[in-house]
Amino acid sequence: MRIVKLTKETTKNILENMLKRSPSQYGEYESRVQAIIQNIKGNGDEALFSYTKQFDKADINASNVKVTDGEFEEAYKAVDPALLDVIRKALVNIESYHELQKQNSWFKSTPQGTMLGQKITPLEKVGVYVPGGKAVYPSSVLMNIMPAKVAGVDKIIMTTPCNAEGKVNPAVLVAAKEAGADEVYKAGGAQAIAALAFGTESIPKVDKIVGPGNIYVALAKKAVYGHVSIDSIAGPSEILVLADETANPRYVAADLLSQAEHDELASAILITTSEDFAKKVSEEVEGFVQILERKAIIQKSLDNFGYILVAEDMDEAIDTANEIASEHLEIVTANPFEVMTKIRNAGAIFIGEYSCEPLGDYFAGPNHILPTNGTAKFFSPLSVDDFVKKSSIIYYSREALQPIHKDIEQFAKCEQLTAHANSIAVRFEGEE
Amino acid sequence: MRIVKLTKETTKNILENMLKRSPSQYGEYESRVQAIIQNIKGNGDEALFSYTKQFDKADINASNVKVTDGEFEEAYKAVDPALLDVIRKALVNIESYHELQKQNSWFKSTPQGTMLGQKITPLEKVGVYVPGGKAVYPSSVLMNIMPAKVAGVDKIIMTTPCNAEGKVNPAVLVAAKEAGADEVYKAGGAQAIAALAFGTESIPKVDKIVGPGNIYVALAKKAVYGHVSIDSIAGPSEILVLADETANPRYVAADLLSQAEHDELASAILITTSEDFAKKVSEEVEGFVQILERKAIIQKSLDNFGYILVAEDMDEAIDTANEIASEHLEIVTANPFEVMTKIRNAGAIFIGEYSCEPLGDYFAGPNHILPTNGTAKFFSPLSVDDFVKKSSIIYYSREALQPIHKDIEQFAKCEQLTAHANSIAVRFEGEE
Repeated sequence: MRIVKLTKETTKNILENMLKRSPSQYGEYESRVQAIIQNIKGNGDEALFSYTKQFDKADINASNVKVTDGEFEEAYKAVDPALLDVIRKALVNIESYHELQKQNSWFKSTPQGTMLGQKITPLEKVGVYVPGGKAVYPSSVLMNIMPAKVAGVDKIIMTTPCNAEGKVNPAVLVAAKEAGADEVYKAGGAQAIAALAFGTESIPKVDKIVGPGNIYVALAKKAVYGHVSIDSIAGPSEILVLADETANPRYVAADLLSQAEHDELASAILITTSEDFAKKVSEEVEGFVQILERKAIIQKSLDNFGYILVAEDMDEAIDTANEIASEHLEIVTANPFEVMTKIRNAGAIFIGEYSCEPLGDYFAGPNHILPTNGTAKFFSPLSVDDFVKKSSIIYYSREALQPIHKDIEQFAKCEQLTAHANSIAVRFEGEE
Repeated sequence: MRIVKLTKETTKNILENMLKRSPSQYGEYESRVQAIIQNIKGNGDEALFSYTKQFDKADINASNVKVTDGEFEEAYKAVDPALLDVIRKALVNIESYHELQKQNSWFKSTPQGTMLGQKITPLEKVGVYVPGGKAVYPSSVLMNIMPAKVAGVDKIIMTTPCNAEGKVNPAVLVAAKEAGADEVYKAGGAQAIAALAFGTESIPKVDKIVGPGNIYVALAKKAVYGHVSIDSIAGPSEILVLADETANPRYVAADLLSQAEHDELASAILITTSEDFAKKVSEEVEGFVQILERKAIIQKSLDNFGYILVAEDMDEAIDTANEIASEHLEIVTANPFEVMTKIRNAGAIFIGEYSCEPLGDYFAGPNHILPTNGTAKFFSPLSVDDFVKKSSIIYYSREALQPIHKDIEQFAKCEQLTAHANSIAVRFEGEE
């Protein structure tokens, strides 16, 4: 891996380079996605099944679009029992972490007769999109569904493309059932997003759509945003490791590579205060790359978006980590908890030598759907909060409203909203 | 107001009618907004000032784009002291309510040496857009800024269009200063949103943009979403009153009109279980309309989107209220708290005869920026949560990782991510 001295200029260039990973030439895709959405909105199932025939080569209709109990049973028979075993173990941790995120409704009252509060209500129906294709990630199915389940969503509706024989990947089906999906439909791409957003004869309209997907799925989600809610739009994966000379270079190298293998746009960055350590990690990386299965992808990802940066001191390293705002941040220093307190921007923070990123991907419990490409500056990991909404609660008695009623009328009049003022005044008519 | 018997068909028609208020013919606007965004992105201040000249007829440049201390002083001299007084009173309540929304970072640890948690960090820079034009709402300035202030945002940057003389409305400036805006810039429309999203020589790039605006502002916010975060996109205002025969028809009529005066697209709906009460409210409405200043707007709004619906019983009334998912919901029944427990979908819920909607608009403390047009099914009132983000915290000791390391490797291998498996395995090399 290239070793670069960290300067303001280096950081600027890296940030610009990483942003190149966001697709910007949307033009042609956007109009195709809009056409698909309008067609689904207008023609429902008929349009949906026709796209499924066109894109997935499958004959799907109202009688086989929904995955049946029989198909779930088949899926259970088809998956490796070892996978089912780890899915169940992981789910225990994922559920118990997300339980900690649950918020209560609350109120504050006063003896004058006021009550103000915030009521939390789970969303009624949620759509979870699971991409098809070669890379199948049952762990992502768990991570998308479990927070909705814990939030108390009434109905979790999953859609995923089927193959030409009309079959859905068994690992995906098993993960969906174990995590608690209520219904699974065979639909993929922008047409599935449109079906969830507007509903068709077969697929129910939902309140929110979550889950990753290709450029068509991402653009369709952005297009229906506002009509329904969506989670944030997923980008290529990243890891940033902050390490000093006390870290184990072999572990750090292995962790960098675990992200680089995701795809050619993935980014793996080490920031260290030790030049000697930088060299050791680079050597370990070279060694590992030769023996790893996804060598070709890893090499491209490292060439394009991999860096080992040598900082003057830990403060400079931390500042740069905050600027990059990585999806995953590992802290492997003499005092990792101390460093953690200085981190503002990161999707998930892994503390210490044994808290490597795959622990979080699969097992520890926190969600692995995290803000990417610098968006950790303002977005959060997928959580139970994404599947509830709040209503304000306002109660004032006559006695509580009386002493302030003139103030409210005054404010409304200043804004030239006299019917607002009247709504208050009418309650104290004839009192002066 | 028209009185209609509530049926499934009525509800369906009303919902369809209300959705007509969402602009759907975006085409022409969208390409103009895209052009503005690209121009600001490429040419910064130069493009910004040229749009300000074109749209606001003002000569703005780098030396006068930022509101000065002197301009704030002038504004304080220009505003009605009565307005300043109620702004200050309202801010006490708004601040103390939003303080209750603050969440703590938390963690859970085990003696095996694990710590999982969620770290809350305020956003660093936030942009608040305040529209110009005739309707000036200092209360909205307070409601946009205060939750950001309470959240602990480092820098709150406001933009608002100036008039042809380069002056900003004094009430807006005073509200901004009182609520705690750090900097105010003279910029409006899609160009202001683009400037906040990408930064120019004069205007800093922010992490999130909030605040209402016209169609250009709304489309610009949607276009920059993902590059920065945004609040939800605001629509026309609504009130829904749930009332039985115990309610005061005069109060309810006044409350319906307080929303109808906002604009011709505003909607005011009463659902009641008493036909007699329905008639009384309708009569009171006719009486009030004649004497209210914004009569013309109110009449159009009532004709287009005003309804008095008579339900069979309170359960039917509540179901319909949940389907409509109104921005503001008043409950004026014999047992309003009981009814409140059955409400799933509403932006703010006003309980009882003296909790009228303007109390919430100006004074009680909860935010008046609320989800509109049915989006209360999945969006929430603007809150402190909108101005913070979360990072997951993951720490495992060697002792905690050891017993589960094979499980994680297994899961990674099932997903064909062997570098993920390697990251775990390398930590236990030579142990078997």
